[in-house]
Amino acid sequence: MTQGKSLPDLADVRKEIDQIDQQLHQLINQRAKCAQQVAQVKVAEDGKDAVFYRPEREAQVLRAVMERNQGPLSNEEIARLFREIMSACLALERPIKVAYLGPEGTFTQQATLKHFGHSAISVPFAAIDEVFREVEAGAVDYGVVPIENSTEGVISHTLDSFMDSGLQISGEVVLRIHQHLLLGENTRPDKISTIYSHTSSLAQCRKWLDAHYPGAERVAMPSNAEAARKVKSEWHSAAIAGDMAADLYGLKRLAENIEDTPDNSTRFLIIGRETVPASGDDKTSLMISMRNLPGALHQILEPFNKHKIDLTRIESRPSRSGAWNYVFFVDFNGHIDEARVQPVLKEVGENAADMKVLGSYPQGVL
Amino acid sequence: MTQGKSLPDLADVRKEIDQIDQQLHQLINQRAKCAQQVAQVKVAEDGKDAVFYRPEREAQVLRAVMERNQGPLSNEEIARLFREIMSACLALERPIKVAYLGPEGTFTQQATLKHFGHSAISVPFAAIDEVFREVEAGAVDYGVVPIENSTEGVISHTLDSFMDSGLQISGEVVLRIHQHLLLGENTRPDKISTIYSHTSSLAQCRKWLDAHYPGAERVAMPSNAEAARKVKSEWHSAAIAGDMAADLYGLKRLAENIEDTPDNSTRFLIIGRETVPASGDDKTSLMISMRNLPGALHQILEPFNKHKIDLTRIESRPSRSGAWNYVFFVDFNGHIDEARVQPVLKEVGENAADMKVLGSYPQGVL
Repeated sequence: MTQGKSLPDLADVRKEIDQIDQQLHQLINQRAKCAQQVAQVKVAEDGKDAVFYRPEREAQVLRAVMERNQGPLSNEEIARLFREIMSACLALERPIKVAYLGPEGTFTQQATLKHFGHSAISVPFAAIDEVFREVEAGAVDYGVVPIENSTEGVISHTLDSFMDSGLQISGEVVLRIHQHLLLGENTRPDKISTIYSHTSSLAQCRKWLDAHYPGAERVAMPSNAEAARKVKSEWHSAAIAGDMAADLYGLKRLAENIEDTPDNSTRFLIIGRETVPASGDDKTSLMISMRNLPGALHQILEPFNKHKIDLTRIESRPSRSGAWNYVFFVDFNGHIDEARVQPVLKEVGENAADMKVLGSYPQGVL
Repeated sequence: MTQGKSLPDLADVRKEIDQIDQQLHQLINQRAKCAQQVAQVKVAEDGKDAVFYRPEREAQVLRAVMERNQGPLSNEEIARLFREIMSACLALERPIKVAYLGPEGTFTQQATLKHFGHSAISVPFAAIDEVFREVEAGAVDYGVVPIENSTEGVISHTLDSFMDSGLQISGEVVLRIHQHLLLGENTRPDKISTIYSHTSSLAQCRKWLDAHYPGAERVAMPSNAEAARKVKSEWHSAAIAGDMAADLYGLKRLAENIEDTPDNSTRFLIIGRETVPASGDDKTSLMISMRNLPGALHQILEPFNKHKIDLTRIESRPSRSGAWNYVFFVDFNGHIDEARVQPVLKEVGENAADMKVLGSYPQGVL
């Protein structure tokens, strides 16, 4: 066996890993014991209604983890590991029950697992209003539903469900999706006559394709992964797919992030029955009813502008309760318990026919 | 706020958790650095062909974790967390690529994530032979395919794929599935007229149902979870579903583990290109070709019996290469590198028309 002089001995490194594992093991169980103590205190205080999951506390823990992270593990990976550790500790008392928009294997399930970890009990439901109903009935603790998607826009079904519901938003999850134009080794960029991808990925990159490959035929495939596999051995063709498929098949990235919306992502909301205290970096969602659309828009925007509160989103939906009524869904940075936010709420409330706080919740972590 | 005297202070416990988290964080990154050192050594030794993933080493780490575990986290949870930590450390060098029998959301995906953790790149394929082909072509490092299921029996497609393949088995994963008979609060056990469940669950409990509820109508539902939800509010009906659905809907377990096969589980194989050294608790799979069925069976069993090697499974399949030829798939406890195993292999090999070692690999952990 030939080894460079400065290389460590494999057996020594493995011994070190074993020692680290023993310490990790002890610490994780020590953390679980602390979680049990927290639960004990909460049961003593609140009895049967004790709530063990604190979204604001979890967001704070994850932010601290990412702030102090020095690697080599990435912020995303280390946050994921801590989320799983917290999930396991929490489940020790009583696993969180979560309903999500199914079926299994969808992005909403991915968002659910990303947010609650794998120790939660998560169950798919066929429709958004079923998810709302399960949470309202108390059959589950939380629900996860998509709220906006940079291609399809806002998921109006979710907004509409809030009109009839007393549920609170207790968190958000953002999943980012980037698309690349991928080639096999033998394909020349100026000879591309066919572009393969899943229909929705072709749609997400439509403008880019119109501008760069107006003459190429676009062929829909069952998945991006299959598109990537196809072009590996085919000349004169390219695939649109994400990093995973590119890495898997070792394809060249001819162009990266070619999705038309620069921030191509899907945003999900966590819905629950409790309000969430401030975490230090929060978002608030409001539902505001107005009579007259053009004037109303100004009336809503003005107080935010005056008090320098950042609006992050505004959507209008026709109200169900009569003609000429509009409902606005507004998101801004801040928590309703913050002093700087309260005058805004007061002013908006005075102008509106009705205003409902859908929730103040921690900004999505990663 | 009224607190029992002996209860700890919530702020103190949270401070302790924060300190534990800092130590955990440091240790996890220290472990990741060790993994980088291991990778360095391996690259120096083997260059581009360096293999970073060692199934036998991972099995040993997980067994050690479970052996020393004192709780409060269960062996299963702590093993899961360590698997994720190892998965993240390994992915730092180069994420493992895994092909599995899709689509997403199936038990095979669940087995894949259970075995390789969430830092692996895993991609679904539509057929078992496609998974084999991807591993053979080197597009992925490993494949995951189902091999036996207590209801449907052996998955002959997987066995057949081994006949034409030079791939090695490098691991196994077992997923257990238990079924219960569940009732809503108001249902009397002697008044059950309808039993809801998914078709495959009804099939798994057919004999039990024939014996205990011969008169009840069996109604197929899209999923066990929906069956459970239905009976929550319905009188005179019961559902067959697992623990998750029972917990979710707070149903009474009238009878537990009612599946006809006591060990109702699905077993998956990890297939790869390399042989795996002994981990200390291993299994070996052989493929043996024979001419004549009745005598052949005895000839195969005899050496195992004589040398006291435990057979765990034996399956026969008609060979593809001609009439009257049989192929046996045999699993036994032990590794081909063990001295006690070698005489058996020699004797079986002498009697067989052909014998191939499909792999020696660590017993499934949990």
